[in-house]
Amino acid sequence: MRPIDALVNSLSEAQVVTDPDVIDSYARDRTFLEPGKALGVVLATSRDDVVTTMKWATEHRVPVVPRGAGTGLAGASVASDGAIVLSLAKMTAIRELSPADEIAVVEPGVINADLDRAAREHGLMYAPDPSSYEISTIGGNLATNAGGLRCVKYGVTRDSALGLEVVLADGRILNTGRRTMKGVTGYDLTGLFVGSEGTLGVITAATVRLRRAPIAPPSTFAAEFGSLRDAGAAVSAIMAAGCQPSLMELLDRATLQAIDDWRNIGLESSTQAMLIGQSDATDADAMVERMERLCMEHGASFVAVSSSPEEAEELIGVRRLAYGAKERMGACLVEDICVPRSALPDMITAIEAAAVRHDVRIATVAHAGDGNVHPVFIFEHGTLEPPAEVWAAADEVFRQALALGGTLTGEHGVGLLKQRWLELEAGPVGTEIQRGIKAVFDPLGLLNPGKAI
Amino acid sequence: MRPIDALVNSLSEAQVVTDPDVIDSYARDRTFLEPGKALGVVLATSRDDVVTTMKWATEHRVPVVPRGAGTGLAGASVASDGAIVLSLAKMTAIRELSPADEIAVVEPGVINADLDRAAREHGLMYAPDPSSYEISTIGGNLATNAGGLRCVKYGVTRDSALGLEVVLADGRILNTGRRTMKGVTGYDLTGLFVGSEGTLGVITAATVRLRRAPIAPPSTFAAEFGSLRDAGAAVSAIMAAGCQPSLMELLDRATLQAIDDWRNIGLESSTQAMLIGQSDATDADAMVERMERLCMEHGASFVAVSSSPEEAEELIGVRRLAYGAKERMGACLVEDICVPRSALPDMITAIEAAAVRHDVRIATVAHAGDGNVHPVFIFEHGTLEPPAEVWAAADEVFRQALALGGTLTGEHGVGLLKQRWLELEAGPVGTEIQRGIKAVFDPLGLLNPGKAI
Ligand SMILES: Cc1cc2nc3c(=O)[nH]c(=O)nc-3n(C[C@H](O)[C@H](O)[C@H](O)COP(=O)(O)OP(=O)(O)OC[C@H]3O[C@@H](n4cnc5c(N)ncnc54)[C@H](O)[C@@H]3O)c2cc1C
Ligand SMILES: Cc1cc2nc3c(=O)[nH]c(=O)nc-3n(C[C@H](O)[C@H](O)[C@H](O)COP(=O)(O)OP(=O)(O)OC[C@H]3O[C@@H](n4cnc5c(N)ncnc54)[C@H](O)[C@@H]3O)c2cc1C
Repeated sequence: MRPIDALVNSLSEAQVVTDPDVIDSYARDRTFLEPGKALGVVLATSRDDVVTTMKWATEHRVPVVPRGAGTGLAGASVASDGAIVLSLAKMTAIRELSPADEIAVVEPGVINADLDRAAREHGLMYAPDPSSYEISTIGGNLATNAGGLRCVKYGVTRDSALGLEVVLADGRILNTGRRTMKGVTGYDLTGLFVGSEGTLGVITAATVRLRRAPIAPPSTFAAEFGSLRDAGAAVSAIMAAGCQPSLMELLDRATLQAIDDWRNIGLESSTQAMLIGQSDATDADAMVERMERLCMEHGASFVAVSSSPEEAEELIGVRRLAYGAKERMGACLVEDICVPRSALPDMITAIEAAAVRHDVRIATVAHAGDGNVHPVFIFEHGTLEPPAEVWAAADEVFRQALALGGTLTGEHGVGLLKQRWLELEAGPVGTEIQRGIKAVFDPLGLLNPGKAI
Repeated sequence: MRPIDALVNSLSEAQVVTDPDVIDSYARDRTFLEPGKALGVVLATSRDDVVTTMKWATEHRVPVVPRGAGTGLAGASVASDGAIVLSLAKMTAIRELSPADEIAVVEPGVINADLDRAAREHGLMYAPDPSSYEISTIGGNLATNAGGLRCVKYGVTRDSALGLEVVLADGRILNTGRRTMKGVTGYDLTGLFVGSEGTLGVITAATVRLRRAPIAPPSTFAAEFGSLRDAGAAVSAIMAAGCQPSLMELLDRATLQAIDDWRNIGLESSTQAMLIGQSDATDADAMVERMERLCMEHGASFVAVSSSPEEAEELIGVRRLAYGAKERMGACLVEDICVPRSALPDMITAIEAAAVRHDVRIATVAHAGDGNVHPVFIFEHGTLEPPAEVWAAADEVFRQALALGGTLTGEHGVGLLKQRWLELEAGPVGTEIQRGIKAVFDPLGLLNPGKAI
């Protein structure tokens, strides 16, 4: 009997997929990376399925790649040779939603937006909102510590994670954290799992924090600038003035051009950057008025303001088109550095310089309020790997981010794509410690080997 | 040569204290616990001193108890037999304060309030504010993940910790985290150190997040209730209404009585509980008006409101007297459970029941917005250990907190005092994993042995 037959016997034929075409559809994420040849896919529907799979994997020394929706941008859920892909996508129950305690207990396959919608029925929201909120899972969001547009006010996924149920590599069950807002019993294992990219355990349930949804409709602005530096300076001024935007996105000319080419947004030829901001405070209109004034003071040529929800969606809609517009232009290497906010103009200048020096097309959007910059490197459609000049430009951008006191990845994670640069940031002691921690949870190295650390 | 002489040679006579009286003054925290017999105290003034001490400790297998200001309430900085106390209290430099990036880089001995004052000069604040803010250190706050009054809006110390410089048990230096608002490179080691009570490494510098200080003066209220349950219900209603208080403290009758006996605050005989709340929002007055209304709707007999800073300090001043007032009444076991917010009334009822059943005096204050409850068990002055009935009542309170979905400690930590109950919450798998993590950082078990985990 092949090892996989033993797994089929413990689970069921329907839950263990070995059809190569189906395997392939579970083997990739949203990067260009080619997956290895996986043994099969487990479609878990319960914690027990996960326990069974991990016990089997430990017995037979089979690597396991946990997987949510496969929307990752770092290669972290790309299948490796001889591995089982463990999909959590079918574990979609919202087990509990307590308006009084402002928490929910969910299974890992719940789609981000579904949880948010369930919360809204009680006047609450699930704050972390990656742009992939309609397609990515809470499990994947936790495992990558996903950010999003609202982070600038409400923090990242980590800030909404209270407790986890995790199946360890050997099939044991670990409960971390708590249902309470505060707590300091023992080490912060919840925080350790958040962002660990499936390398420490498989998240089978999560207790997450919900927040009160804003009562009044938000107020929104979109400002056009003749220079990217001016837009960056406006961001700094807005944050320094304590305006507490609930969204603060920056788009460069290349991005705007790609969107305009696709959907004709009437882009002025003089516009080099656009800043889109929102306030959801009880005095949102006054806040946005202040932000508008600060944009004008920092050289904005035009500012549109609205507090109607439809018009707001239109203004933010431009931002939501960015990813699709770039994909039309070519294959994309979506990057994700983060710098101290004051270094934003320098970082953007460095990206522009790298584009010129290496003759590469880079279109940049940024969660500007957090200093989180996504330079998207665009290369020819159909090319399997980014060409050498793209990697050269990316290398320059990464090193520059570190030199400016920044980090290699603000929210997408290390996965496979950033392995090469990892030790530049983690250092030798940090690298050794991280490997030691990995070995505590997964001594045989079965969980998502070669990823993240 | 005795091992300690080698240490004196590497540092200096002045930095290695062996006078028994001085040792004793560095061997206790704010609990009743009697310290063991320490070898000496190192007064570190630089990271290098810490490296020297840890290398020496590793060579000679000497346990080390890191220490900030010794204001802890869990016994975590109480000296153990044969240990060196490593005081960081003299490392008090604020190395950097960047208003543009809203961060500061500080040494561990900086007093919490000193950092806050330095930040205020730039319109910023350091948000975590344990009631011990005038006497406790940032290093101690980090090592305990300290909470405080403002947590209900701004989160705990963990939420302000971005990156750390740590000296490991063997003297190696580890840098964790970053200067940026977001980042997901590698495992969250910063989070792991926060709350680890000196058992994983010695924090020698921290990059912390500052926040914009509120622009307008806050608005404050104090409401009196005829029943503790009503006050608890008012808290729930206020939080559910999205009022976002920046402070929400609850005092029970026993606490109020102790304060009144001491300072005569004109306590009405019918008052069973007081709720003190504050808003620092731009529309603080409107928010406090809403909170006042909700208090009245939930049975408050009287609500005082003020937006003058002096009057606000007077209202909050009552809360600040709580600890001193109780210490006058007897020796104190200050406890620190946290429950989901909706369980607050049940938890308070359970505490009252335990007091009656075991015939023990318990006076309770709560960071009510977070469900964090401090029942203070009062016993006879001069008694070395709490008597059996105090422990019996405390045991009942801890178990009840866990049964209500809560945790053993919201902010004070486990230290020595909570060791007995720890596994009830962490479970066997969690306990094993925590020990495994400890061994990665400190394989010889030299750092604060017997504490926290
Ligand atoms: C259009 C688009 C927009 C995006 N916008 C954002 C954005 O704004 N912010 C952002 O942060 N990201 C963004 N992303 C990236 C991606 O959506 C996130 O990384 C997301 O969190 C991945 O979730 P997923 O369910 O797809 O996980 P997957 O891609 O399936 O997996 C990601 C990682 O999580 C692990 N994992 C998944 N589930 C579990 C589990 N239950 N237990 C343990 N490990 C698990 C995997 O092993 C892998 O390491 C975007 C992607 C796209 C395509
Ligand atoms: C009147 C009063 C009010 C209080 N109010 C609050 C409150 O509201 N909220 C709250 O959370 N706590 C409160 N506390 C408890 C206490 O002040 C906190 O736990 C505080 O964080 C301890 O800081 P410290 O500098 O005194 O640390 P210590 O008591 O010296 O040490 C505490 C722990 O931190 C470790 N440690 C200290 N420095 C370092 C370092 N540099 N590196 C590694 N480990 C280190 C020690 O080993 C020990 O485990 C209060 C205490 C008092 C006396």
